[in-house]
Amino acid sequence: MATPPGVGAIGVIRLSGKDAIRITNKIFRGKDLTNVPSHTIHFGTIRDQEIILDEVLISVFVAPHSYTKENVVEISCHGSHFILSQIIQLVVRQGARLAEPGEFTKRAFLNGKFDLAQAEAVADLVASDSQAAHMAAMNQMRGGFSEEIRKLRDQLIHFASLIELELDFSEEDVEFASREDLGKLVNDLIRVISRLIESFNLGNVIKKGVPTVIAGKPNSGKSTLLNALLNEEKAIVSEIAGTTRDLIEDEIHIEGIAFRFIDTAGIREARDKIEQIGVERTRKKMKEASLIIYMFDLKEETPAEINQEADKLENLGIPVIKVGNKMDEAPESMLKELKSLEDFVLISAKWKENLDELRSRILEKVNRDGFRTGDTLVTNLRHYESLYNARKSLDDVLKGIEKGISGDLLAMDIRQALHYLGEITGEITTEDLLGNIFSKFCIGK
Amino acid sequence: MATPPGVGAIGVIRLSGKDAIRITNKIFRGKDLTNVPSHTIHFGTIRDQEIILDEVLISVFVAPHSYTKENVVEISCHGSHFILSQIIQLVVRQGARLAEPGEFTKRAFLNGKFDLAQAEAVADLVASDSQAAHMAAMNQMRGGFSEEIRKLRDQLIHFASLIELELDFSEEDVEFASREDLGKLVNDLIRVISRLIESFNLGNVIKKGVPTVIAGKPNSGKSTLLNALLNEEKAIVSEIAGTTRDLIEDEIHIEGIAFRFIDTAGIREARDKIEQIGVERTRKKMKEASLIIYMFDLKEETPAEINQEADKLENLGIPVIKVGNKMDEAPESMLKELKSLEDFVLISAKWKENLDELRSRILEKVNRDGFRTGDTLVTNLRHYESLYNARKSLDDVLKGIEKGISGDLLAMDIRQALHYLGEITGEITTEDLLGNIFSKFCIGK
Repeated sequence: MATPPGVGAIGVIRLSGKDAIRITNKIFRGKDLTNVPSHTIHFGTIRDQEIILDEVLISVFVAPHSYTKENVVEISCHGSHFILSQIIQLVVRQGARLAEPGEFTKRAFLNGKFDLAQAEAVADLVASDSQAAHMAAMNQMRGGFSEEIRKLRDQLIHFASLIELELDFSEEDVEFASREDLGKLVNDLIRVISRLIESFNLGNVIKKGVPTVIAGKPNSGKSTLLNALLNEEKAIVSEIAGTTRDLIEDEIHIEGIAFRFIDTAGIREARDKIEQIGVERTRKKMKEASLIIYMFDLKEETPAEINQEADKLENLGIPVIKVGNKMDEAPESMLKELKSLEDFVLISAKWKENLDELRSRILEKVNRDGFRTGDTLVTNLRHYESLYNARKSLDDVLKGIEKGISGDLLAMDIRQALHYLGEITGEITTEDLLGNIFSKFCIGK
Repeated sequence: MATPPGVGAIGVIRLSGKDAIRITNKIFRGKDLTNVPSHTIHFGTIRDQEIILDEVLISVFVAPHSYTKENVVEISCHGSHFILSQIIQLVVRQGARLAEPGEFTKRAFLNGKFDLAQAEAVADLVASDSQAAHMAAMNQMRGGFSEEIRKLRDQLIHFASLIELELDFSEEDVEFASREDLGKLVNDLIRVISRLIESFNLGNVIKKGVPTVIAGKPNSGKSTLLNALLNEEKAIVSEIAGTTRDLIEDEIHIEGIAFRFIDTAGIREARDKIEQIGVERTRKKMKEASLIIYMFDLKEETPAEINQEADKLENLGIPVIKVGNKMDEAPESMLKELKSLEDFVLISAKWKENLDELRSRILEKVNRDGFRTGDTLVTNLRHYESLYNARKSLDDVLKGIEKGISGDLLAMDIRQALHYLGEITGEITTEDLLGNIFSKFCIGK
């Protein structure tokens, strides 16, 4: 079943494999499906003996022109649970088998439709719920990321083969692979891989949302700010009737990037005896955050106190945006003085003043400038690890060249780097790895 | 959006109308969709300016060869909420409008694809979750019910026109429409309509499930029986892995008919002070039931007591199945004596003995014999009311013939009957009626 469970107007059942068309034809009354051209749709009924289970549309994709490169049939029926389960049981009785999660995409990979990194992007694409995450996944699915890796790998393979050629002629002491050229290439590779590795920070944050903490003394207006940001977004989102999406609680989107607010006792604290525990927990949560929005109460705190506290925040090693709240209740002179502080934004959460300014400061902090539509971002921990290992092997190659080690030792390190790069795109795989990747897909994809 | 909300592998967005293909073509990159044949599928990308929203399959149905008889396009995209909402917003910006619930089926009806009773059956079909409900809806959707009504109506229209012809020649005192023949036809009609009206009891029960109460003295084993019946069904249903359906709590299916157990305090009673209230409520619920399964404790009650209680049950006017539980703990002589009682089944709920016998007795009670695959059943309250009103008008026609009333008065009663019959299939409609019917559909159908 390719559509989500629940009652909808249409349910789609998808079959893939050599016998997909033949099996469907046995239960379909309308036209002989075994003779129709690819990419055509046919109206008829699905029958269990003489009982009509449903009137359906059958889409036929003839191998290799399908998602899996196998024969594929999609049965679009009425979206009742009863009908869907009856038809599934019927095709199973005719010899079909229930698909495992991600099996269609796994077959597409195994049949060479796309590489492993692209296949993984399909799952990311279905799961993406912000514009930036969607773009990163779409870019990866369309091969941008894989191509870059493959180019690197091809160049390296070229050198590896030259060096291995040297080994064949080792008694003649020739040097087919110029150590200088190899060093230059490896340096190039390390530069590209390092850029990809660095992109993981942003990529990961884009995929999962930027973990953000709103902190500050009690009553500084933390909940008021969070609610103001959430409500403004809900208002924007619900402009188009019928497309309102379920907002994940405590998540806001700024220019397509999701900021996930970490629930700290500080945000929801109650002024009672357990507050102390709450504060401890907030400090801990602050360290897990990628961004801290720290709020000062301009009505209660003096500029001197604020300065002192702000200095302490710098030591956390995490990007902090300092927010002076209740600007409407602070004296003009104080506002002037505070404006000069770095990363200090003056707002009124209550009156929703200056929230746009705050949003653009938040955006600056995730270095969105580094991310453009076409950019290649690493968003997948598995890819990150492979890249990291590849770089280590390449570092070894560089060191080896410097030390003038023998060709066969160099070749070993190069092969190691090739192995790690191959893992990303799936030139190198194991059953375990594939099982692990595709089990995270939903059934029907 | 035609598929249910939630994350699935595929999401389908459906557009219908004159401009459906043209609008889709504006955001699709791949092939010129305005020139492709009907019932073909095309791969490409959906773009918002230069940003690729998704790789999609577009199914094109050219008017009048579609569900609505208009141009229809189905966009199959990846099933992420983000992608679906982006594409919907994009087509809306290009001039499409969000569909109202049931709008596609409403258009199909207005464009003459099927009649109103068939359109209503589409919603029943999607909602049906038992085999019998599914069959009844499928039968209605495929026109079985409508045809019967239409034939009756046509015959009646024939007579109405003959009688109205008489009115034109009223001064000449001719009788184009033989009163005898009319009386015969009306009698035939009343017989057919009465059968349809009577089928509503079964039809309604099939659509909604048979409201069933398990009653009996405390400790007679009511919960044990319910659990035994539920668990056996769960075991049967889950035989085919992956197709397990969510059983509605306290509903069992016997040969495709759903029996919905009414929750009475008796079934879940606690032995405390509020039990008395519970017993009152059980008595009330018993009156709402279409079937009562009344349990006797063979270990505690004597045949004399049981006989006395059983007599009382007969007076309820509701079908009752008397069940003697704990047959394994009762003396042989007692079992013999009870077996001779009408509608008395001996079981052991604890050891799941004789449950099949009980099930077939339950089935007999809903008169399933009256229901065969091809039978026409009235399952819709609206149809029932129209039929009921039509019969009343036809009764008036009969009385009129007997009394020898004038042709114009007869014609009035016949027109009234025609009106009610026309309401069922939609020859007679109002905006209110249509709004009321289609608002109950899900969006996308």
